[in-house]
Amino acid sequence: MNYFVGIDIGGTNVEIGILNAQGDILGKESIKTESKKGAEDTFNRIWNKTKELAEKLKIKVEDIEAIGLGIPGPVVNNSVVKIAANFSWNNDFPAKDLMEKVTGKPVKVGNDVKVIALGETLFGAGKGYKNSITIPIGTGIAAGIIIDGKILEGAGGAAGEFGHVVVNKEGYKCGCGLTGCLETYCSATGIVREGRRRLELDKNNALYEVIGGDLEKLEAKHIFDLAKKGDKFSSEIVDFFCEKLAEGVGMLLNIINPEIIIFTGGVARAGEIITDGVKKYLPKYALGMTMENLIFTFGKLEEEAGIKGAAALVMNK
Amino acid sequence: MNYFVGIDIGGTNVEIGILNAQGDILGKESIKTESKKGAEDTFNRIWNKTKELAEKLKIKVEDIEAIGLGIPGPVVNNSVVKIAANFSWNNDFPAKDLMEKVTGKPVKVGNDVKVIALGETLFGAGKGYKNSITIPIGTGIAAGIIIDGKILEGAGGAAGEFGHVVVNKEGYKCGCGLTGCLETYCSATGIVREGRRRLELDKNNALYEVIGGDLEKLEAKHIFDLAKKGDKFSSEIVDFFCEKLAEGVGMLLNIINPEIIIFTGGVARAGEIITDGVKKYLPKYALGMTMENLIFTFGKLEEEAGIKGAAALVMNK
Repeated sequence: MNYFVGIDIGGTNVEIGILNAQGDILGKESIKTESKKGAEDTFNRIWNKTKELAEKLKIKVEDIEAIGLGIPGPVVNNSVVKIAANFSWNNDFPAKDLMEKVTGKPVKVGNDVKVIALGETLFGAGKGYKNSITIPIGTGIAAGIIIDGKILEGAGGAAGEFGHVVVNKEGYKCGCGLTGCLETYCSATGIVREGRRRLELDKNNALYEVIGGDLEKLEAKHIFDLAKKGDKFSSEIVDFFCEKLAEGVGMLLNIINPEIIIFTGGVARAGEIITDGVKKYLPKYALGMTMENLIFTFGKLEEEAGIKGAAALVMNK
Repeated sequence: MNYFVGIDIGGTNVEIGILNAQGDILGKESIKTESKKGAEDTFNRIWNKTKELAEKLKIKVEDIEAIGLGIPGPVVNNSVVKIAANFSWNNDFPAKDLMEKVTGKPVKVGNDVKVIALGETLFGAGKGYKNSITIPIGTGIAAGIIIDGKILEGAGGAAGEFGHVVVNKEGYKCGCGLTGCLETYCSATGIVREGRRRLELDKNNALYEVIGGDLEKLEAKHIFDLAKKGDKFSSEIVDFFCEKLAEGVGMLLNIINPEIIIFTGGVARAGEIITDGVKKYLPKYALGMTMENLIFTFGKLEEEAGIKGAAALVMNK
């Protein structure tokens, strides 16, 4: 028997899974990233936890064939992380080399969003579709683009940086340095900012009550939950969010013309209120023929998408 | 010896070329499309002209291995033209079947822009690059996206409809039905409209003189030529054009992250004044890492791109 390891390294936690050749997760573990201790320390702790997990599953370490690693930031040649912004590690971080040194196994590295897209495409909501776009919406927003079953990497690993298309050049400054990026509107951070902006002007509403008048407490979930109950004030914020998202999705449709769009991530848990809103505004931003047979759906794998997609980097899929 | 035919069908003219297996055009011919006479009539005239050309080149018709066809409109499965807007033919026009019936040869059909991109990539300015975007700017604007050496078709043949990304939802109505498409600014039609708009407000300038005060006479070339001579009024129009183009190109960079951008078509003949302007504004619209090793250049093949790209559809390239 041969086994594969899928690892999803985030800024805070690392998710580790051991999979069989069919892509089933046989067991999984989680550790803290604690990137400040240095990459070598984190990678050694990941490998120790993986070996522990293997032992628990009665899998011999020598039967682990290869390791796939998902990590935030643009990844070049399945090997180097160009900008390791979420970590205390340097740019041009040689993730593959280090992991191979630590484990003695063949390793491939992929950008976290692309890896999630691969997971959803091979094992989740995109199964059976050759041209999908997976859009995780959480703290930020990005797009994992799958063409003919393959991840679109881009020349420098930066394909799918969809959160940074500019939708309002007079808009908010974005963390990336640009102004008016889609992400400044269509993310948890974005919708919370818009909510706060409106709450500062209008305090006579259910949203203000729910957070007890403390704007610092506002979360995306408060807004979506009230909007689903029909609250007008919150519905207008969601509507604004959905129109901006439709503007971005329209660009993807006119440029890529995918078969299926898969929303995933924390904000996407709000569900059909998002796809309904996007569908309402999309005819303003997308050519009719790109919407004809288009499917909107949600990720199925939740946090397992990262593990499965990472493992898929090194499986023969 | 085996030979290939590349055919570029436009709304007005059809360009026909016979190529050897290396992709060299051995001879070419042109006929009027006259689509009103019906598709069968046009296709028969194309094939008669092709046979004439073969005879002139002392090539036996039986040595013609296959035929590639470039045509405007979204093409599905290298076979059917979904919307044949530039012709008097019906939608879902079975171009491949008809051409195979007329010629008895294997035929593949491609969208004209995608075919030009393929031509430039295999034989022209994009040679040696696996991830290129060719942007023809003429009456309209579109993008032929090449990923890993293959044309990005899209689920319904509509990938690369870059001219219809919305850059100003309060802007001009576009022929496609949407409002504020990139094409309403970044095309010959777009820059002429902007020029006329400004000339109506200000007649005391060199551009007004050049066209003898007749706004109907204004062409994109007048504006670019005067801008190149340093004329302030025209330079401002070009600057406006370039910023909008940079906005669109920025989207392509953040979504696709290509190695090389190739401008081609009538308007692109204006040359470096366009790439200089785009480069000036691009840092407002594209992530730094997408611009790092990016090359801007111009198409090399002119009208031969369509013939060579069409032939490439059926060659082993």
